[in-house]
Amino acid sequence: MRFFSDNAAAACPAVMAALADANQLDTAYDGDVWSQRLDGAFSALFEREVRALWVTTGTAANCLGLAALCPPTGAILCHEQAHIEQDEAGAPGFYTHGAKLTLLPGEGAKVTPETVEEACARVRYDVHQVPPMALSITNATEYGLSYRAEEVAALGEVAKARGLGFHMDGARFANAVAFTKERPAEMTWKAGIDALSFGFVKNGGMNAEALIFFDPEKAEYVPRLRKRAGHLLSKGRFLAAQLLAMVEGDVWLENARNANRAAQALADAAGSERLVHPVEANELFVRMTPEEAASLRAQGYDFYDWAPGEVRLVTSWDQDMRSVERLAAAIAAL
Amino acid sequence: MRFFSDNAAAACPAVMAALADANQLDTAYDGDVWSQRLDGAFSALFEREVRALWVTTGTAANCLGLAALCPPTGAILCHEQAHIEQDEAGAPGFYTHGAKLTLLPGEGAKVTPETVEEACARVRYDVHQVPPMALSITNATEYGLSYRAEEVAALGEVAKARGLGFHMDGARFANAVAFTKERPAEMTWKAGIDALSFGFVKNGGMNAEALIFFDPEKAEYVPRLRKRAGHLLSKGRFLAAQLLAMVEGDVWLENARNANRAAQALADAAGSERLVHPVEANELFVRMTPEEAASLRAQGYDFYDWAPGEVRLVTSWDQDMRSVERLAAAIAAL
Amino acid sequence: MRFFSDNAAAACPAVMAALADANQLDTAYDGDVWSQRLDGAFSALFEREVRALWVTTGTAANCLGLAALCPPTGAILCHEQAHIEQDEAGAPGFYTHGAKLTLLPGEGAKVTPETVEEACARVRYDVHQVPPMALSITNATEYGLSYRAEEVAALGEVAKARGLGFHMDGARFANAVAFTKERPAEMTWKAGIDALSFGFVKNGGMNAEALIFFDPEKAEYVPRLRKRAGHLLSKGRFLAAQLLAMVEGDVWLENARNANRAAQALADAAGSERLVHPVEANELFVRMTPEEAASLRAQGYDFYDWAPGEVRLVTSWDQDMRSVERLAAAIAAL
Amino acid sequence: MRFFSDNAAAACPAVMAALADANQLDTAYDGDVWSQRLDGAFSALFEREVRALWVTTGTAANCLGLAALCPPTGAILCHEQAHIEQDEAGAPGFYTHGAKLTLLPGEGAKVTPETVEEACARVRYDVHQVPPMALSITNATEYGLSYRAEEVAALGEVAKARGLGFHMDGARFANAVAFTKERPAEMTWKAGIDALSFGFVKNGGMNAEALIFFDPEKAEYVPRLRKRAGHLLSKGRFLAAQLLAMVEGDVWLENARNANRAAQALADAAGSERLVHPVEANELFVRMTPEEAASLRAQGYDFYDWAPGEVRLVTSWDQDMRSVERLAAAIAAL
Repeated sequence: MRFFSDNAAAACPAVMAALADANQLDTAYDGDVWSQRLDGAFSALFEREVRALWVTTGTAANCLGLAALCPPTGAILCHEQAHIEQDEAGAPGFYTHGAKLTLLPGEGAKVTPETVEEACARVRYDVHQVPPMALSITNATEYGLSYRAEEVAALGEVAKARGLGFHMDGARFANAVAFTKERPAEMTWKAGIDALSFGFVKNGGMNAEALIFFDPEKAEYVPRLRKRAGHLLSKGRFLAAQLLAMVEGDVWLENARNANRAAQALADAAGSERLVHPVEANELFVRMTPEEAASLRAQGYDFYDWAPGEVRLVTSWDQDMRSVERLAAAIAAL
Repeated sequence: MRFFSDNAAAACPAVMAALADANQLDTAYDGDVWSQRLDGAFSALFEREVRALWVTTGTAANCLGLAALCPPTGAILCHEQAHIEQDEAGAPGFYTHGAKLTLLPGEGAKVTPETVEEACARVRYDVHQVPPMALSITNATEYGLSYRAEEVAALGEVAKARGLGFHMDGARFANAVAFTKERPAEMTWKAGIDALSFGFVKNGGMNAEALIFFDPEKAEYVPRLRKRAGHLLSKGRFLAAQLLAMVEGDVWLENARNANRAAQALADAAGSERLVHPVEANELFVRMTPEEAASLRAQGYDFYDWAPGEVRLVTSWDQDMRSVERLAAAIAAL
Repeated sequence: MRFFSDNAAAACPAVMAALADANQLDTAYDGDVWSQRLDGAFSALFEREVRALWVTTGTAANCLGLAALCPPTGAILCHEQAHIEQDEAGAPGFYTHGAKLTLLPGEGAKVTPETVEEACARVRYDVHQVPPMALSITNATEYGLSYRAEEVAALGEVAKARGLGFHMDGARFANAVAFTKERPAEMTWKAGIDALSFGFVKNGGMNAEALIFFDPEKAEYVPRLRKRAGHLLSKGRFLAAQLLAMVEGDVWLENARNANRAAQALADAAGSERLVHPVEANELFVRMTPEEAASLRAQGYDFYDWAPGEVRLVTSWDQDMRSVERLAAAIAAL
Repeated sequence: MRFFSDNAAAACPAVMAALADANQLDTAYDGDVWSQRLDGAFSALFEREVRALWVTTGTAANCLGLAALCPPTGAILCHEQAHIEQDEAGAPGFYTHGAKLTLLPGEGAKVTPETVEEACARVRYDVHQVPPMALSITNATEYGLSYRAEEVAALGEVAKARGLGFHMDGARFANAVAFTKERPAEMTWKAGIDALSFGFVKNGGMNAEALIFFDPEKAEYVPRLRKRAGHLLSKGRFLAAQLLAMVEGDVWLENARNANRAAQALADAAGSERLVHPVEANELFVRMTPEEAASLRAQGYDFYDWAPGEVRLVTSWDQDMRSVERLAAAIAAL
């Protein structure tokens, strides 16, 4: 039983059905009827007019979003554990033509208004230094913490005061919404977010992610950048259909709730002593001796070592609850 | 009945079945069993060890291929009608960090050894000018002509003599192979091709294209570039499965034959007087007055105007032969 | 006696004196008193408020100007013989992060409203093609022709109608002004020019060129780009002083008149039969058999072969009139 | 009396004389006799065959050097206070097309083998993370410390073991050599340095810096990159002449000794209690209350506040020793 990553899970039934339905002749690129419905579907979800574009990866969503918010001569503030810094092979540097990532410290991979202020205060706004132009946070964070809407809003205020574009890497946005029970609007544009990478692949999609701009004007050049980056698929309807299948109903939220529920069951079993961070999404970081980890693996559970004495468990939208219960029991029995 | 573009056609049954089969938990990115089989499947097809990578668009395949063959300080020779020049939004400039496209003239969007030689001869190889470092041809061409293996080989000789990396944009490679009945090996590496963008989407795929390197050493940095460009999908198995479904059997060739057959039927009906170029793949460029075009459209046929007095018809892998026969009759009756 | 290029001539006395005067402690970068006077000096010359920056090369001036006018996703229209296309090692691609140069034909390296219109008309303004965003002309042209103010204005109208930023590569702007006797204002901003690379090095400077923006708003990011490109010299006063020495008096115009006068003397000697282009600055392209060229060289004159049966002669600000007369006689005697 | 920066000092007499001597017609770019002598002059100094290129700024030297050592997909390790990180407006990101700077901590802006090892050990060498490809150190450092040859060699060993290109930002290389009395060869290539930005401007030059490659093969593309970045001056002889004037004799070393001597005098006066770092070049960081700083300024001394309770004093090659003595006395009297 695999607890490696939600990245590798199956695609959910609604997505597979949508692909079958979309398998008919239509207009190429994003001229088809599915793609044309995207803005509307996400506007409904976010309770305001938004611009929604499909892409195939979170890296593409993040970097197109950042490229729209930060010029080559600027810096993007992000946590030192942010996915854009750690796991995207330098894609932000590619997409922004060399803008800088300025790294912020913080517990649980969370950015705070203080760390943002400090980073801005350190910079001389002359031509010799690189001025911060954007702020990017990940929600839920790389350590499975979920920002509350009011935390995002506090960051949004600093961003606005400092003239920073504000991006949210929502690879696990659904999990954060499911955990916090906040409205998507409160979590995003009402809190100052300009662009959201709204993740679907980890949450039951096959290969479609959404990039949302809350101010359509800021999205003006993004369709052209998407094409220029080779991310305008000719049969885009197969991406749009996936997103619609998940977002026009509650599939996106149901799937995230399932994953979160599995994580909570494991968290309860582990107990707060073992947990490195509170479990607020679908990832657990658990203190464990190498012997304990080996014992679990011997029982058939697969997961990553994260740091000395620490393992990472990730649950998926389709996590089999029986295997979860068995793993929970096995952890409790350590 | 639509004769706009093969870009918008449905995905073929083998591809849909493969997606269903691949819908199970496996390793993320390209660590899954499907992706791991890619090199082998394409090596078998090309009769030598190759390196095969999936990507989602022809633009990504072309530009990753070109970035591997041409440094930022070089020029890529291509036809002035080449897709990389005309229809990729400047993606080559993005991926190569500003390398130049040097444009060659030629009938039917074909490049010849003479035009390549002339372009090289015009350049002073000092630091002031941009030296040609790569050659890119499209096969079948943007006007539906297919290079024969010996034509490619003649270009390959010039490329080798001039130190040019040699790339083939094979968005319709299958159609070219189906038409010429040449072996894929003869058409590519035996003729000097270093990198091939092997198109599947226009030919019945959903969203997977293959980028093939015949010298695995030249592909060394490409996986990293693919990731950096946001083109490493986390559920890559769904791309690999599509490619395998088409290439491990004869699906890729069958589909292309169907499209070509439909094009030939229309070509026969049009007659050589009307044809701007010989029909050697699945595209026709047909001389037609605006009144004639309007008459066909009134009968329910959709297609693009291409130039004054000229329309473009494209057939697809799944073109309904009855509609083709009716259109053929309608054209013959003009 | 060398008629190779004005690029290699000496620096003029006013420049050498200015360097000596500036050789004292002052503020670094462009905070010194000389640099602070630049905007004023060029504003006086151009009869309006301008923003003037020093750089050390024409390539830097051209490319910073173009980067300010054209985004990475756009195309710059220029003549196929333009210096930015032929002799800057792809620097425009570097500075603009991969924007495209779209090449225009035309006699004497001149761009016309018609060729600009045609290039724009060929482009579909969708995300697949690269939209023209800037127009760059060279004055005097690479073949030594000078645009009249009304010709520039006609191009400026097209540029404005098409939404193109308008750049002038004025490596030999002084020669063009000296020849046409037009006011600098008429030749530039009154004719729609947004940015001018105002050349001084070929005209008696040591290593300072000026980049002029007629709308200071368009120059907003240029100081930062200049620094980012490594072109913000710490002892910038030595560049500013050169420019001031040439532009606050008539040195720039006197020097250009000298060079032009020498060119005219040679042109008169050559006669219109031999001249490939009218001589409107300080370059001559002269029809000559290899034997004739060899004969001149045997008499001690050095110059470049340009094309079969054609040589190029360039005169400098400090051309010794006696050697010019002797060469004129030698040409007349061929 | 100004103790702001060595950046703003005058050019030294040898340089001014060399400019006058070079003010004659010669071949353009770097084809002149001065430029042609550069490799030889620096080869003599470094006791091996080197490749030496002139540029006009330290930023250009640093970034051309780094671009030659690190691909766009790599990371450059440097100190978090390094000039390339703090004061070059993101130029490394521009020149390397988005390579990353990975920042190392360390006293006095010094990099140690341990911090380099730790940075490398943190990276997974897969396609998701950015692999370190180069190491850059500044000597003397941004806090005025000089690496000894054996310290550089220890870093060179790590660099070699980890496959890192090794660059030295020697904006104040002369001061480091003057202080340590090490041979330039020991400080550089014998210690593993691949590329050196050898600073002249802060040390009495007007606007010429040298970029040295100890393995000419690694410099192969640099002349082309220099041109592409707009840094190939047409009258390059005026740069070459400056460098030759300083390096063919002992001017470079004499000037640095003068600056260092002035700094030592001030350091002695300040006493070790006040000094934040040992004084090993021509910069002092001195603890001082705002009142003390104000008192010195009231006596006519200008300098920068650096941090709360800390000021920076920089001495120059031409520092007037009487003003130094007076300032020393004033500091001692605080």
